[in-house]
Amino acid sequence: MAGGINRQIMLRSRPHGPPSLDNFELVQAPVPEPGEGEVLMRILYLSLDPYMRGRMSEARSYARPAALGQPMVGGTVGRIVATRDPGYAVGDIVLGFGGWQEFALSPASALRKLDPGAAPISTALGVLGMPGMTAYVGLTEIGQPKAGETVVVAAASGAVGSVVGQIAGIKGCRAVGIAGGAEKCRFVANDLGFDACVDHRADDFAARLATACPDGIDVYFENVGGAVQQAVWPLLNDFARVPVCGLIAQYDATAAVPGPDMISVLRKRLTVRGFIVSDFSARLGDFLREAGEWLRSGRLKYREHVVDGLENAPAAFLGLLQGRNFGKLLVRVASL
Amino acid sequence: MAGGINRQIMLRSRPHGPPSLDNFELVQAPVPEPGEGEVLMRILYLSLDPYMRGRMSEARSYARPAALGQPMVGGTVGRIVATRDPGYAVGDIVLGFGGWQEFALSPASALRKLDPGAAPISTALGVLGMPGMTAYVGLTEIGQPKAGETVVVAAASGAVGSVVGQIAGIKGCRAVGIAGGAEKCRFVANDLGFDACVDHRADDFAARLATACPDGIDVYFENVGGAVQQAVWPLLNDFARVPVCGLIAQYDATAAVPGPDMISVLRKRLTVRGFIVSDFSARLGDFLREAGEWLRSGRLKYREHVVDGLENAPAAFLGLLQGRNFGKLLVRVASL
Repeated sequence: MAGGINRQIMLRSRPHGPPSLDNFELVQAPVPEPGEGEVLMRILYLSLDPYMRGRMSEARSYARPAALGQPMVGGTVGRIVATRDPGYAVGDIVLGFGGWQEFALSPASALRKLDPGAAPISTALGVLGMPGMTAYVGLTEIGQPKAGETVVVAAASGAVGSVVGQIAGIKGCRAVGIAGGAEKCRFVANDLGFDACVDHRADDFAARLATACPDGIDVYFENVGGAVQQAVWPLLNDFARVPVCGLIAQYDATAAVPGPDMISVLRKRLTVRGFIVSDFSARLGDFLREAGEWLRSGRLKYREHVVDGLENAPAAFLGLLQGRNFGKLLVRVASL
Repeated sequence: MAGGINRQIMLRSRPHGPPSLDNFELVQAPVPEPGEGEVLMRILYLSLDPYMRGRMSEARSYARPAALGQPMVGGTVGRIVATRDPGYAVGDIVLGFGGWQEFALSPASALRKLDPGAAPISTALGVLGMPGMTAYVGLTEIGQPKAGETVVVAAASGAVGSVVGQIAGIKGCRAVGIAGGAEKCRFVANDLGFDACVDHRADDFAARLATACPDGIDVYFENVGGAVQQAVWPLLNDFARVPVCGLIAQYDATAAVPGPDMISVLRKRLTVRGFIVSDFSARLGDFLREAGEWLRSGRLKYREHVVDGLENAPAAFLGLLQGRNFGKLLVRVASL
């Protein structure tokens, strides 16, 4: 790789309000050489996920903000092209955290080897990766759904929501999705097998949601906030659980957004609990085993939205924040 | 008792906004006779508690509203004056739900016999009763305090808050109370042994609270809401627990009161959970045993605010909603 060029997308500035293309900058740098215990990856797939919006800001959060003038952070699947670690060979396919660039160094200890024969390698960033695990631990550890209960999730055609609803179905629950537009709703109900899917763009969205949840809502997997949260809240049953996974509708807010009335938390004895997937890393083995079985048996389906070319990552990411993707959003940085 | 007069305080009308004396009416009725399986109690103590504000309204809640034209509901300690149940004798002292009146019928099955030699009978309505149990289950089941953590509770000189902080201390936590006025704060810190108590009426309340919690807040036992909640929220640590027991500052609101920003719930992975003491009735035995031991050994202290005369119950109750009581509020309806 000596003398090669590494294209990178840097965080140039922090957004105040909605981010824009100006916040990013495509630069070129030399491809680096691995040090002892490191490997060099050629990135094949870059995962784009809503949490990245948080990293663009300086506000205190569970992870440090991305640094200005550094490549944006992100999960990646790559092929090893140089190695100074005996555990990895050139040609190995690995899951890592390479960021928005074409080549990335990584300590070998931060990688996980993938078996391209077991599942498509891109799934390690989606249904069998961080988004799938987020759905799995949030729903099972916090949502604790019981057969016959109603589980509601928004962004239901997306990487996390699609898994939440399908696991809810596997657990014997009524799975109700919320998605933007008729095409996504058809996909969620017909292809993913949710019991219902409601279009949040409909004028009578709140009424449609109530109709789709005739027995109320026992688990609301919160990943959007905003108007969807407001429509869900009155439908929550006593003792309902609300795993708070994300609030994508609120990330661009420049002032605190008021939350739901606490009186309902008290009267209905709700449990509202925020979580981050890494809090439950002890469950990774359970997740990979169970989700892998569901995937192979066809009980767990997924859809990917693949954008070609690193240079298109910023626009694709902005689209993600506006719900313009349809399925798990990935950038194909290079072909195998 | 035949021919006797039973004075009762009825709910005459429902408040819109803050309740007033006009919502209550003192009436006289004949003392009733017990039917088979029932007893007649002469009420000695009536407990006045914030939850009664909810019963005055028609809004959906965890319990049915009090009925217009009926005596207000309430926990009582009474002496049996007539019995048609073989398990109870005239003269027995019982804990029951007699309501705001001088005499009450009760099914024998709804009573618990008290031993006046074990503890003052009034404690069955306070430190060894529903408020004490509320503190116990909310703190231990939901708050789950660990030694060295900081526990914050408002209304710290009151029936629930005083027990929350003292149990927190017993568990090895830093107990920080919030109360209204210097006298209550001195009592909480000096007599109840909290590590600190902050006056919420101080102009610089939020800054004082921060100073009293140098390591942040791990458990916030929520019983007031409003401005105290707003001051507490930024001080919550990652993984803090918020048992939501009451929101006395918001009960008179005529529109939904916005809750705290959910972004903090997500980023800090907070657990916010509403509860009602009756959800944990299986723990009554544990509570009575543990709290009884703490009381006898002097580790658990309590203060009562006793108002004499049933006719004074409405004014005393309105005072409770404004924090004018100092200790567990009781009405002495009759002497032993």
